[in-house]
Amino acid sequence: MTVRRVKAVGVLGMNLRSYIRDIADFPTPGILFRDITPLLSDASALKYAVDRMLELCEPLSSDVIVSVEARGFLLAAPLAYRMGKPLVPVRKQGKLPYKTHRVSYQLEYGTDTLEIHRDGIGEGQRALIVDDLLATGGTVGATAELIRECGAQVAGYAFLIELAELNGRQSLCGEEVVSLITYD
Amino acid sequence: MTVRRVKAVGVLGMNLRSYIRDIADFPTPGILFRDITPLLSDASALKYAVDRMLELCEPLSSDVIVSVEARGFLLAAPLAYRMGKPLVPVRKQGKLPYKTHRVSYQLEYGTDTLEIHRDGIGEGQRALIVDDLLATGGTVGATAELIRECGAQVAGYAFLIELAELNGRQSLCGEEVVSLITYD
Repeated sequence: MTVRRVKAVGVLGMNLRSYIRDIADFPTPGILFRDITPLLSDASALKYAVDRMLELCEPLSSDVIVSVEARGFLLAAPLAYRMGKPLVPVRKQGKLPYKTHRVSYQLEYGTDTLEIHRDGIGEGQRALIVDDLLATGGTVGATAELIRECGAQVAGYAFLIELAELNGRQSLCGEEVVSLITYD
Repeated sequence: MTVRRVKAVGVLGMNLRSYIRDIADFPTPGILFRDITPLLSDASALKYAVDRMLELCEPLSSDVIVSVEARGFLLAAPLAYRMGKPLVPVRKQGKLPYKTHRVSYQLEYGTDTLEIHRDGIGEGQRALIVDDLLATGGTVGATAELIRECGAQVAGYAFLIELAELNGRQSLCGEEVVSLITYD
């Protein structure tokens, strides 16, 4: 019984932050990059992270999971699989082969363009946007625009990591935002 | 009882090929692109595909799943999650933030470069390479080189789709290759 209790505490208290590696000055000087690959390459941490994100996502009552290329796919795909929901990829311009909606959005320097297949989401469906990391919210905000262009609505946003100091959450129009690891 | 039998046959015989959309002349004229997004956006087809790939991958006795950006992530991530194995991403040059091994390989026109984190795979480990589609085998062949540079070995290759006419399988050094949907 003691062993059981210790095990349970161990799982409940798994410190996912210890699986995130900080890389200074990547991709550009002055940026502290949060590298999730140590978490991915630990099978227990990966399972724990997906299972906890699943718990956070279940109450958002979504019809479809929308995932942002490329790191977002690593979390959205097991989530969609576990939740038994369709998975719709959002990709950089020119990568999706069928008819798309397209949106350009501001980066720190320059702009970027994302696309979604026009037939990816049905009208009136509720889409949950999944990505690895919430910074300023530019990418997922653009993804929300794509979802609305499909005639669908945003059920919420789910992230493995949230950089709270960048206030991305405030930019996301009051929709539900869940995240597993927060850096203040 | 009749209903049960019909259901069982339906699942066993799920025709995944009907969820693949053919797109002519993408990304370049003369190429017939096999678009997996209709499969991803059908929850039953996605679950069926992952579960069948899982069955094919189990006998290959791997320690780690190696996944190729970006579509490969969509299948490799739920597989790694289900198999309880580490997931190691292989990405285009400049995307991985830590120390990498790097390999360049020939495309039809020009070359491409892939990277893996040096600490992604331990020496002597057996790595299963997962991607969405096997064409000529250039990308996964380069990925195998990265795995060997880490001091690890290739346990095998798993694909959702195999374009048999391009003979990719023959280029993969006699290692085990499994695929779910084959186009002759």
